Amino acid sequence: MSALPALAELTNHQIRLASRPVGLPTRANWNNTCEPVVEPGRGGVLVKTLCLSLDPAMRGWMNEGKSYIAPVEIGAVMRAGGVGRVIASQNPAFAVGDHVSAGLDVQEYCLIPQEQLKRSGIFKIDPSLGLSTWLNVLGMPGMTGYFGLLDVGQPKPGETVVVSGAAGAVGQTVGQLAKLKGCRVVGIAGGQAKCDWVVKELGFDACIDYKNTDVRAGLKEHCPQGVDIYFDNVGGDILDMVLAKISRGARIIICGAISQYNNTTPVKGPANYLSLLVNRARMEGIVVFDYAERYPQAIAELASYLLAGSMKSKEDVVVGLDTFPETLLKLFNGENFGKLVLQVAPD
Amino acid sequence: MSALPALAELTNHQIRLASRPVGLPTRANWNNTCEPVVEPGRGGVLVKTLCLSLDPAMRGWMNEGKSYIAPVEIGAVMRAGGVGRVIASQNPAFAVGDHVSAGLDVQEYCLIPQEQLKRSGIFKIDPSLGLSTWLNVLGMPGMTGYFGLLDVGQPKPGETVVVSGAAGAVGQTVGQLAKLKGCRVVGIAGGQAKCDWVVKELGFDACIDYKNTDVRAGLKEHCPQGVDIYFDNVGGDILDMVLAKISRGARIIICGAISQYNNTTPVKGPANYLSLLVNRARMEGIVVFDYAERYPQAIAELASYLLAGSMKSKEDVVVGLDTFPETLLKLFNGENFGKLVLQVAPD
Repeated sequence: MSALPALAELTNHQIRLASRPVGLPTRANWNNTCEPVVEPGRGGVLVKTLCLSLDPAMRGWMNEGKSYIAPVEIGAVMRAGGVGRVIASQNPAFAVGDHVSAGLDVQEYCLIPQEQLKRSGIFKIDPSLGLSTWLNVLGMPGMTGYFGLLDVGQPKPGETVVVSGAAGAVGQTVGQLAKLKGCRVVGIAGGQAKCDWVVKELGFDACIDYKNTDVRAGLKEHCPQGVDIYFDNVGGDILDMVLAKISRGARIIICGAISQYNNTTPVKGPANYLSLLVNRARMEGIVVFDYAERYPQAIAELASYLLAGSMKSKEDVVVGLDTFPETLLKLFNGENFGKLVLQVAPD
Repeated sequence: MSALPALAELTNHQIRLASRPVGLPTRANWNNTCEPVVEPGRGGVLVKTLCLSLDPAMRGWMNEGKSYIAPVEIGAVMRAGGVGRVIASQNPAFAVGDHVSAGLDVQEYCLIPQEQLKRSGIFKIDPSLGLSTWLNVLGMPGMTGYFGLLDVGQPKPGETVVVSGAAGAVGQTVGQLAKLKGCRVVGIAGGQAKCDWVVKELGFDACIDYKNTDVRAGLKEHCPQGVDIYFDNVGGDILDMVLAKISRGARIIICGAISQYNNTTPVKGPANYLSLLVNRARMEGIVVFDYAERYPQAIAELASYLLAGSMKSKEDVVVGLDTFPETLLKLFNGENFGKLVLQVAPD
């Protein structure tokens, strides 16, 4: 049993889902609540939230209806993965002071009872690699990029890989990893600054600015042999434009469709999907949770690249739990530059 | 050298592409021409056309632009596969009287010079299995169904397979083969007669009449465990409805999209494509020519089923080369019942 701090003095600020948004979420869709912090029972741990991962997938979790994961219930604390520090523990596997990654949700303190430890995905992390890195290249986005690119995409040296949301969390992992595997890599991102960064800092071969240039022309220029792998984070028109440029036997990894998540009209299906037939190509979805047993393998490989300096991890850190409703929107207007992280406490 | 008949007395009637259709092809898109029949040169063969295969893919060949095969040029004899009888030969591999399958095109006689033999795909057939069977289960549609279902779909016993165009050439092969592989098979076809036939004669577990019943309700009723494999010949709304019902790890084989071939508006993309993500499913295109080296294996297996009576091959035979323009349209209004075949000569 570890010594417990004066928990009774602590208040847990939380952000709960008040109603299901139509289109972009607004302040009215959220409720701020306060609760006293509770000591963990036998086998449980209490984690102080340091950083939370804000991801496009959150928008889907706010919708009613079946998906790859249950929706967040109305009135529940919003679901989020994060990193934190154990401040009370009744579990010998976790000591006070340990840094952990877990499903912490949008709140300052997360009590994880013994029976929910496995479901929370909790594991100890090495904070020297950078706390927010564990939400980015070494976190869910990194795992998504790693298994999506390698398992679903099966890249071969010399192939051309295109990735949308190139400066985002998944995109930066995919592009850098594809370069390390010997591919030619073309990103698609919004704005010159992001495009410059992925080319100059991350080593992509090219990056197309979809906000200010013609994506079709960019694909034609930078993918003269066609697109062998497209890692799609955005859907919509860009998916269609890439479909028109795929090569024979191409693989399209459907990771997300951020352009469609806040639609109030039906999702736009890819009109060029028959390019799959002409090119004997395939389009396949990935859900990262399916690879949970192999996360350690991916983390070890990606951490080795980070330590060797052959891979970078860039986060856009916004401070303050209360800014959550507005900060989340940065994902949907493309304002975030790097993986979007909400810092809830400095330490 | 075989004895040559009085070739000079024969006239070759042909149907040529006069212009590229917009929407459904009309008589105005075709030209009827006559040419004298020419003796084959060294290594060549002359084939009398008996039956031609009419297929939805023909509509695509009439369009300009790159696809998996070059378009038919304006003024050229329309491309078609067929079966015929060798009536003159300067090639020891083919004797007068041999029945063959080859790319014969829409004409009464096809001269195949030595240098085009391979490209024509010519091979000898056993007419006792039924001439038109060689354009159906033992022809391109059968090959498409065989490799699409088995190689791309990879069916496992007990899985639910849905196939659209169920009474058509590809559909009947796919459904019967899936039953033989131990799957539950649900067809989608137009009209009660076709639905009754695939259930009662071909042994499908169920068939949904898309013209007169609610396809969504039918899928719900007949696929209570979801759809593991969807073999898509039609595209459009039906593809979207099936996407909403796929199970985890589902495979969708994109073979064609007959509902979209005569569109004068853009192709309708599958709005429910994100079901691929939710269900970790894949959608993959097939072009049968890629499997040419393995046709003999497929033909041997399918012929054994036909001879054993465990598979049937149904053709809708229309007589007369000159009826080609109207007969082709039967495919697009769903009038054909079974694989559509144009009989050019009785023997």
